[in-house]
Amino acid sequence: MCRWIAYAGPEIYLEDLLFHQEYSIVRQSLNARESVFTTNGDGFGVAWYSKRTAPGLFKDILPAWNDTNLRSLAAQIQTRMFFAHVRASTGTAVTRTNCHPFTWKNWAFMHNGKIGDWHLCRKDMEALISPEFYPMRQGTTDSEALFLVALSLGLAQDPKKAIQDTLRHALRLMDRHKAREPLRVSLAVTNGAEIWAFRYSSDQQSPSLYAGAPTTRALEQGDHHIHTIASEPTDTDPSRWFKVAEATGLHWTPSALQDFAIAL
Amino acid sequence: MCRWIAYAGPEIYLEDLLFHQEYSIVRQSLNARESVFTTNGDGFGVAWYSKRTAPGLFKDILPAWNDTNLRSLAAQIQTRMFFAHVRASTGTAVTRTNCHPFTWKNWAFMHNGKIGDWHLCRKDMEALISPEFYPMRQGTTDSEALFLVALSLGLAQDPKKAIQDTLRHALRLMDRHKAREPLRVSLAVTNGAEIWAFRYSSDQQSPSLYAGAPTTRALEQGDHHIHTIASEPTDTDPSRWFKVAEATGLHWTPSALQDFAIAL
Amino acid sequence: MCRWIAYAGPEIYLEDLLFHQEYSIVRQSLNARESVFTTNGDGFGVAWYSKRTAPGLFKDILPAWNDTNLRSLAAQIQTRMFFAHVRASTGTAVTRTNCHPFTWKNWAFMHNGKIGDWHLCRKDMEALISPEFYPMRQGTTDSEALFLVALSLGLAQDPKKAIQDTLRHALRLMDRHKAREPLRVSLAVTNGAEIWAFRYSSDQQSPSLYAGAPTTRALEQGDHHIHTIASEPTDTDPSRWFKVAEATGLHWTPSALQDFAIAL
Amino acid sequence: MCRWIAYAGPEIYLEDLLFHQEYSIVRQSLNARESVFTTNGDGFGVAWYSKRTAPGLFKDILPAWNDTNLRSLAAQIQTRMFFAHVRASTGTAVTRTNCHPFTWKNWAFMHNGKIGDWHLCRKDMEALISPEFYPMRQGTTDSEALFLVALSLGLAQDPKKAIQDTLRHALRLMDRHKAREPLRVSLAVTNGAEIWAFRYSSDQQSPSLYAGAPTTRALEQGDHHIHTIASEPTDTDPSRWFKVAEATGLHWTPSALQDFAIAL
Repeated sequence: MCRWIAYAGPEIYLEDLLFHQEYSIVRQSLNARESVFTTNGDGFGVAWYSKRTAPGLFKDILPAWNDTNLRSLAAQIQTRMFFAHVRASTGTAVTRTNCHPFTWKNWAFMHNGKIGDWHLCRKDMEALISPEFYPMRQGTTDSEALFLVALSLGLAQDPKKAIQDTLRHALRLMDRHKAREPLRVSLAVTNGAEIWAFRYSSDQQSPSLYAGAPTTRALEQGDHHIHTIASEPTDTDPSRWFKVAEATGLHWTPSALQDFAIAL
Repeated sequence: MCRWIAYAGPEIYLEDLLFHQEYSIVRQSLNARESVFTTNGDGFGVAWYSKRTAPGLFKDILPAWNDTNLRSLAAQIQTRMFFAHVRASTGTAVTRTNCHPFTWKNWAFMHNGKIGDWHLCRKDMEALISPEFYPMRQGTTDSEALFLVALSLGLAQDPKKAIQDTLRHALRLMDRHKAREPLRVSLAVTNGAEIWAFRYSSDQQSPSLYAGAPTTRALEQGDHHIHTIASEPTDTDPSRWFKVAEATGLHWTPSALQDFAIAL
Repeated sequence: MCRWIAYAGPEIYLEDLLFHQEYSIVRQSLNARESVFTTNGDGFGVAWYSKRTAPGLFKDILPAWNDTNLRSLAAQIQTRMFFAHVRASTGTAVTRTNCHPFTWKNWAFMHNGKIGDWHLCRKDMEALISPEFYPMRQGTTDSEALFLVALSLGLAQDPKKAIQDTLRHALRLMDRHKAREPLRVSLAVTNGAEIWAFRYSSDQQSPSLYAGAPTTRALEQGDHHIHTIASEPTDTDPSRWFKVAEATGLHWTPSALQDFAIAL
Repeated sequence: MCRWIAYAGPEIYLEDLLFHQEYSIVRQSLNARESVFTTNGDGFGVAWYSKRTAPGLFKDILPAWNDTNLRSLAAQIQTRMFFAHVRASTGTAVTRTNCHPFTWKNWAFMHNGKIGDWHLCRKDMEALISPEFYPMRQGTTDSEALFLVALSLGLAQDPKKAIQDTLRHALRLMDRHKAREPLRVSLAVTNGAEIWAFRYSSDQQSPSLYAGAPTTRALEQGDHHIHTIASEPTDTDPSRWFKVAEATGLHWTPSALQDFAIAL
C-alpha cells in the first residue's frame, strides 16, 4: 500500500504540497494515518508538468522523508499539475522502475492498492499488454501493468472506459486463478490537462481517497476550488476535504470536478 | 536515535538474530517499541567477526527492512560476534559513511544517542581527534567522532577509561558551548574478543539498553548464557532479558558478564 | 555488454580473484580490455556457495570499483565456487533486479551478450517462461529471461540441452521479428557442483571467453587445475589461459573440464 | 580528478549542455579526453539558478551516464546559470555529500584537482573553517574544505581574494606537512550573478580549463558571447574555445569575460 497526491490548478511550488502541509505526503511517508502501512519508505516519485508536453519525472528508492534532492527540487520547481507518490512495497522489488508515477508521452499514472494474488495473475495480465506498449514495461508491479494494459485498451482515447475495462480484466483473471485476495484500487491518471481518479475494490474496502483544497500559495490568493485529490487530507481541517465514496471516480477539468459511478 | 544489537557467543548465522526474532533489529527498523523514533529507516550496518582479525563491514543507506542484500548475507554469514545497527538520523546526512558500526583494525563501535547541540560542539570535539586517527574520519556524526576521540585517548589500551574520558570531554564541550540539549548515550565497543557497553545520560533519560538470551540455533543447543546486548529485547519473554540501569556499563567476556558504574 | 568470472575449486577468499589480480573483474569494471564497452559501471553482482544449498547473493547498482561493501565482503567470504559479474547496460534499467547473477534454489546464471532486437522479441520470449517460473521474473533483461526460459525447459534436469533449446527459441523469435542485430552469448550456469559455460553467436562474433588458472591462495598450494572461466584473463600470463572457440561450451566438474560443440 | 562545466547566459534547458553536445559533460563521465581519469563515474551534481536566490541542487552517487533522473530533469529545467560536475574520487568516499557543487545561500562552488597529500593536511585545513561555517561541513573532500575555508576568509565579500588566500593556506599547510604531491586546482565559484574560475597548480600542471561558445538553443538565436567555462570543450570546433593559461583566473559578468593572473 502507498500514499499519493495529485494537484492541478494555479502554478505553485512543489514544496507547497509536498512539504508545507501538516500531513504532507512526505510526512505520510514516515507516518501515514489512513493506510494499512504507516511507513511508506520504499521509494517515491514525482511527475510534474511544466512547459513541455511530457512531464518531468523524478524517482528514487530512498525514503522521501530525508531525501535532499527531493527537498531541493521541490523548492525550485513550479508547476500547474503534478502527481506524487510514496511507496510501501507489497512484495515487488524496491527499484526506481517499480516507483510511481509511470509515464508515457503526456500521460502519467499512479496507484495505491493491489491486484489480488498478483503472482498468480501476472503472466496473463502482462500478456494483455499490446506489442506497442510491451517494451515500455520497466518493472514488475501490478500498478505499472494496470497502466500499460489501460494504454493498450485505449487509455489515450477514453480514459474512463479504458481503466474500467482494465479493472474488469483484472477481476476476470483473479477469478480464473481463484485469487483469494481482493482487488483494491485507488488510482489517478492524467493527460496533462485533465485528471481521472478511481476508487474501487472487490470487497468494499477500497483504499482511502479524498479531494480537497489545502492551503497553498495559489489558494492564498483567493482561489478556493478543489485542486487536490489525495490518499488522505494533508491538513486537519475537515471542512476543506470530502471523502470519495466506494466505487466512485472523479473527473477533474479546469472548469469542473465531477464524480461518476464505477460499474464493472 | 537508532537501535542496535551486539552478539557474542557460539557461532550462529546472522539471520538468527537479525531476522528470526519476533522483534528483530530489522523489524525494529520499521517499528521500534522503546525508541523516540519508531522508524529507523535511514540506513543500517553490520560488523561481524569471522576468521580474520578485522571484522567484515556491510552498510547501506536503504532501510533494512526490504534490503535483499542484507537478507541474503544474513543467511550465509556465520559468526561468533557481531554488531548490527539501524539508523534514524537526527540531522546528519544519510550516507554510508554516517552509518554504524565504525571500525578500526580489530575494533568496532556503534551508538544510539547524541551529544547535545552537536552543531555547536562539533568543531572542538573533532579537534580532539589525534592526527593519527583524523584521516579516518569518514562522516559527520557525533557517533563516529566519539569513536575517534576514544581511539585518540587510548581506547585500544583501556576501553573503559577511554570511553569515560571521551564522554567527560563531550560534557565539558557542551558546557563550554552552553548546549541546551542533554548528552544521551547507549554505545557498544569491541576488540573482537570482549564487549564494553555504556548507558549514560546527563539528564537521567538514557536510551534503553538490555542484555539477554534470545533463542538462536546456538542457544537451542543448551547454552543459556547471556550473549546479547541490545537497545530493546528481540522477543517478548521478559524472563530472558534484564534492563541495564542508568549510568551503568557492561563488560562481556567469554567467561563472564560484569556491570560497572559509569562515573564522569 | 558485460564481464564475468566463474570459479570452482579449493576454498579461496573472494578477494583472491575479485581484487588481487592484475586485471581482476573489478578492474575490468573500470577498464575492460576485450569488451566492446571498456567501462562496466552499471552495477555488479556476486553469487557464492558456502555451507548452504542456495548461494549467497550480493548485488548493487553502483560501480564495482569503489564499492566499500564489495571490498569488505570479498575479504571475509571464503568459497569453493562463485560467479561474479560487472554490468554495462545495453538499454535496460540500472536496477539491482537487472544485475547478474540470477539465482533459483541451488542454481546461478550469468551472461554477457544480447538477444538481437530484444525490444521486438521480448514479449514472445517472456511468454515462453512457464507459470511456475514466471513470478520469479524480477527485472527486464534478456539475460534473466534466458535463465527463466531455460529453467522452464528443464535446466535443472539437463542444462546442456535446456540452454541450447533456449538459444534456439531466441533465434527463432529473432527470425520471426526480423531482428537485424545478431544473437551474441557468453553465459555460465551452475547447480553449485558443476559449471556449464556457453560461447555462441549468430554472426561468429561471440563475446570473448577464456578458461585458465590464475594465481590464488589455493593455487599457490600446488593445485594447477583450471578453476576459472572468465570473459577475459585476469592476469598477463598467456600460458595460463586458453581461449574458448566460437560455438563451444565448457563443462566443469571437480574431476574434469570438457568442451563440447554447440549445435543449434 | 573530475570534469565540470559552468554556464551563464540566456535561459537554456540544462540538457542543451549536459546532453546535447558531442562531448557533453555526461559523455565525459564515461569517456573524458583531457583528464587523468577517463572515467568519472563516482557521482555527479548540478546546481542551477532559477527564480529563487538559492540555487537548486541535485546530486547522486550513480554514474551520470545512465541516470534517468538527471536526463528527465535536464529536459525540464530552464536556467540562466548552472554548474555541473562529474566525479572521479581520488580516495574520499562515494557519497552525495562528497559530490560537487557545494552551495551556501546564493553561492555555488565546484572543483577538479586536489590538495597534495590531503590526508596529512586535512586536520589543519579544516581547523581554518570558522565556527560559523564549520557545521556546514557535510563531507570529507578537500574540495568542500576549500569552499568552506574561502567562505570563512570572506568569499562573499571578495571572491578573488578569498580563493587566493585559501590556496595560499593550502600551500602553506602542504609545506608544513612536507607533502610530496602537488596542489592542482581548477575551480569555479558563483554568487548567482557572476562567475570566478581559477586554474592553478604548484607544479605547472594544472587540470585543463577552457572557455567557449558551444551551440545551444540560446546561441542559435544569435548570441555568440562566451557563456561556458569547462574542463574540456564540449564539441570539436576549436575555433569556439580557448584554453585558459596556467595560473590564470576568469571573471565572467553579464557584460564581460576578463582574465586575471593568480599570484600566490
